[in-house]
Amino acid sequence: MINKLIQKIEQTDAPIVVGLDPMLDYVPQHILKKAFDEKGENLEGAAEAIWQFNKGIVDATYDLIPAVKPQIAMYEQFGIEGMKTFKKTVDYCKEKGLVVIGDIKRGDIGSTSAAYATGHLGKVTIGENTFRGFDEDFVTLNPYMGGDSVLPFLEVCKEEKKGVFILVKTSNPSSGDFQDQLVGDTPLYELVGKKVAEWGEMHMGGTYSYVGAVVGATYPKMGKILRELMPKAYILVPGYGAQGGKAEDLVPYFNKDGLGAIVNSSRGIIAAYKLKAYEKFGSQAYADASRQAVIDMREDLKQAWVAAKA
Amino acid sequence: MINKLIQKIEQTDAPIVVGLDPMLDYVPQHILKKAFDEKGENLEGAAEAIWQFNKGIVDATYDLIPAVKPQIAMYEQFGIEGMKTFKKTVDYCKEKGLVVIGDIKRGDIGSTSAAYATGHLGKVTIGENTFRGFDEDFVTLNPYMGGDSVLPFLEVCKEEKKGVFILVKTSNPSSGDFQDQLVGDTPLYELVGKKVAEWGEMHMGGTYSYVGAVVGATYPKMGKILRELMPKAYILVPGYGAQGGKAEDLVPYFNKDGLGAIVNSSRGIIAAYKLKAYEKFGSQAYADASRQAVIDMREDLKQAWVAAKA
Repeated sequence: MINKLIQKIEQTDAPIVVGLDPMLDYVPQHILKKAFDEKGENLEGAAEAIWQFNKGIVDATYDLIPAVKPQIAMYEQFGIEGMKTFKKTVDYCKEKGLVVIGDIKRGDIGSTSAAYATGHLGKVTIGENTFRGFDEDFVTLNPYMGGDSVLPFLEVCKEEKKGVFILVKTSNPSSGDFQDQLVGDTPLYELVGKKVAEWGEMHMGGTYSYVGAVVGATYPKMGKILRELMPKAYILVPGYGAQGGKAEDLVPYFNKDGLGAIVNSSRGIIAAYKLKAYEKFGSQAYADASRQAVIDMREDLKQAWVAAKA
Repeated sequence: MINKLIQKIEQTDAPIVVGLDPMLDYVPQHILKKAFDEKGENLEGAAEAIWQFNKGIVDATYDLIPAVKPQIAMYEQFGIEGMKTFKKTVDYCKEKGLVVIGDIKRGDIGSTSAAYATGHLGKVTIGENTFRGFDEDFVTLNPYMGGDSVLPFLEVCKEEKKGVFILVKTSNPSSGDFQDQLVGDTPLYELVGKKVAEWGEMHMGGTYSYVGAVVGATYPKMGKILRELMPKAYILVPGYGAQGGKAEDLVPYFNKDGLGAIVNSSRGIIAAYKLKAYEKFGSQAYADASRQAVIDMREDLKQAWVAAKA
């Protein structure tokens, strides 16, 4: 799957992952109205609206991008109905040939981590048969509980040829509360980064590992250090755009091969029609606005990965 | 809700939370067969079997215990059908008057954490109305992303009079990989503990805070230090029983009022009929075995909290 991801990045010239993190107030009125008319102004109606909204964006962008990253929290907030939309979105994106990164940030001990891994990447055995729960291609993981929270995922990844992105240095302002604490002379995020590199050796694709890392665009100096510490880890980079990360900051996240990083944008793409730059599209053509935002992001990022190659 | 939890602990003399973490191989044959006959040998059948299994245990123990802690991973592994059983279990336990701690270990940045908080503790606004997703009373949280991952939960907790238990020192063998790293002279888990105490001041119940901590039974020396650092935090203690934690190790987790800790047991109670000590019950009477295991655990724990009071 890491090889497929890289292949698709090379084909599209777009190290972009579109964050499918829909808030109800991103959804245009005409979609909301139709969904509420059909299913009621309730959890089911909201989940339907989000599904139709997602489908529009995927249809308008799937040929330009390698991957999507649905943020499961945005679906969990609508309970079971939201989870159904999460699953429908995962399935639909895979049908469209996209790599799906489930942004689930799970992590627990041994058998519990194994259960998460089963549900999101693997298959569960029931009687004589096996079944798949959510079936993403990659998931994000939280490392706070240590190695035995991560290893059960790697077992499943090996079997399924799937991968993980482990939180190393996150993009939020208070990520430093614990991640930046100095252990001797070394900040905790570097210790985590070293572990990611170590775990990564256990499950290599071609040039890159199935074990990637999350490093926020908002901390480019740390990104540079982490790039060097984890040369074979793909870096999933949140924080571009709405959170303040700029393309010129992203150079150090790429390797000299022009690869090694994939940059997430959520709001900046899925709610592009609400931005000044794309308001001419209007809410009816919200998906066209998203398409244009992807094209613009592709151009913007090009300076970063081309500069890294130079 | 923290006051209700304490009241129920005092009423039952049982600082016990039953971990509803069902694996399919815990479920007795007669329940499996009935569920598969009715719903098919598939995800729906497995989810039905687990629901019936849970219901049996809750019916047999609810009068003896203050709280349950369903581990959401065990449900997520069965996809949407599993999540439906999670929700049914939460609702049923609340109907029975139990406090429900959703063991979800979530944590993300700002608006995403807010979405998790909405889905698990709060309500979501759709049109003119509000709806509840999963609606537990407490949830567990992972602190790796720092303060802005925790605060959105506290906002919802204040509004709903609900609470959280934040991972501080977990019970698993490799919890030390990052949690034990020394920041200056202070291990990271103590820094997290201090933050928990600080966050706790922002949302007090009566004597105890709505912000609790998870500290594993397997590390009693660290438990003692953390008890002193977070005097007003209720400590949720995993790792008793199957993971090796003993009652005599639990004394330091309690305060001098005999309160302040609630001890989880999962396998040791829900799969008691598979243990030597309870095999006489047989699989048909698996729920009676669970009841007896609760009674025995209550007796065992009594030495710990009575000793703490002395």
